[in-house]
Amino acid sequence: MVKIKTIELNLKGKRVKFADITNMVKDAIKESKIKDGICVVISPHTTCSVYFEEYSHDKFEDGTEYLQYDLNSSLKKIVPDHDDSERYNYPGKAHYEAVESWPNASEYLPNGDKTALWNGDAHIKSTIIGSSETFAVENNELSIGKTGYIYFVDFDKTRSRIRKCKIVIIGD
Amino acid sequence: MVKIKTIELNLKGKRVKFADITNMVKDAIKESKIKDGICVVISPHTTCSVYFEEYSHDKFEDGTEYLQYDLNSSLKKIVPDHDDSERYNYPGKAHYEAVESWPNASEYLPNGDKTALWNGDAHIKSTIIGSSETFAVENNELSIGKTGYIYFVDFDKTRSRIRKCKIVIIGD
Amino acid sequence: MVKIKTIELNLKGKRVKFADITNMVKDAIKESKIKDGICVVISPHTTCSVYFEEYSHDKFEDGTEYLQYDLNSSLKKIVPDHDDSERYNYPGKAHYEAVESWPNASEYLPNGDKTALWNGDAHIKSTIIGSSETFAVENNELSIGKTGYIYFVDFDKTRSRIRKCKIVIIGD
Repeated sequence: MVKIKTIELNLKGKRVKFADITNMVKDAIKESKIKDGICVVISPHTTCSVYFEEYSHDKFEDGTEYLQYDLNSSLKKIVPDHDDSERYNYPGKAHYEAVESWPNASEYLPNGDKTALWNGDAHIKSTIIGSSETFAVENNELSIGKTGYIYFVDFDKTRSRIRKCKIVIIGD
Repeated sequence: MVKIKTIELNLKGKRVKFADITNMVKDAIKESKIKDGICVVISPHTTCSVYFEEYSHDKFEDGTEYLQYDLNSSLKKIVPDHDDSERYNYPGKAHYEAVESWPNASEYLPNGDKTALWNGDAHIKSTIIGSSETFAVENNELSIGKTGYIYFVDFDKTRSRIRKCKIVIIGD
Repeated sequence: MVKIKTIELNLKGKRVKFADITNMVKDAIKESKIKDGICVVISPHTTCSVYFEEYSHDKFEDGTEYLQYDLNSSLKKIVPDHDDSERYNYPGKAHYEAVESWPNASEYLPNGDKTALWNGDAHIKSTIIGSSETFAVENNELSIGKTGYIYFVDFDKTRSRIRKCKIVIIGD
């Protein structure tokens, strides 16, 4: 049996944005009525990732949890912020031209602002963390420890975005 | 068809602990009698990971294989040992208070020792490596090359632990 | 229902080699006739990875796309090229001896050249990126955004290689 649910996340701010989606995944499993199998949580976006981590009770003023901040600090040591056109090769001349030719170009280049494509950092971070994570489902429940949570992260700092996340449950 | 097997790993020492679980995964596939499909190997702990790597025949005195040591050396460059309270934001004041309120607090804070929660390094490393890995199953066998092995790693250096690992096999 | 397809990739050059396998994965899904489920793309090699990323239109002379180059530049900061025997512990004395005893030793050590095993960098990079990635399948199509592509990467710079990649589709 297969059940697929797509959730939408409204992620706001010009910063790395994290969303705790644990309860949404648990709800999808419950609705699926699948007893035993796997639950795959997937980002269809190339600047976002899904990962499994502890919930840390301390937060910064913008809502970022301490472990989320520490993760990003570690990654930044090899993937610095894309705040300068020389930081990464991406996006090159041909990429700008390709995006300008898209029918929805203004979504990616608002007011023709080329810095809106300076998200090379987000592309590389999401490749390192990965676009999906797979969990066990047992007795129609998400089979993780009590301290585990599922996070969706949008590493793209250029703007607020509404992001999709796919939850696929397969089993008996 | 779905078969789920939970194995327990007795991981000893105040260091990053690796376990070669290849034969346990192969046994679970054999027992499942599933001919073709996938085998997902999952850590339900937020300081552990599962990954696929070569077995390197040379070992250090504590049993750590050369490639395991080299992996950890690389990760430490951006995720240094959590041997100082200033190294990471985690765990903050609210996190200590939350853990102290848990019924099994003494398991996480033996003798009230706050340094027992200094495993921010383990949390970040396991997010980078990932909590699960998926393999192909063909003809009721793990479909990997001859030099490939499956490793479970507990990045938490604070103490010895008994860890769980879920092996989920799905297919026909 | 389960469908498994093995593709072969002819990857040439003494450098990190990337292959865009998006269309091959889409073809495998179409042929499978599976409507809804997952598609797992798997490297059975311990120096290769599968990941999800944008196609960047600019390329270097050797065909490497800008984002591929930027990914490798970031990883190299903690996993430098294995161009010196002192760079990594791997491969040690016992590993050389083990490989020399294999029936196909000449494949791994052409002309007894020990530097042919200097691929510790590739082993560690592929552990960080991961050996598989899982995607959703909806309406018999790969369920990714328009800008997403699936890449197979061989991090081993020592020589040209023909590599296998497993595509497993499970669903209804």
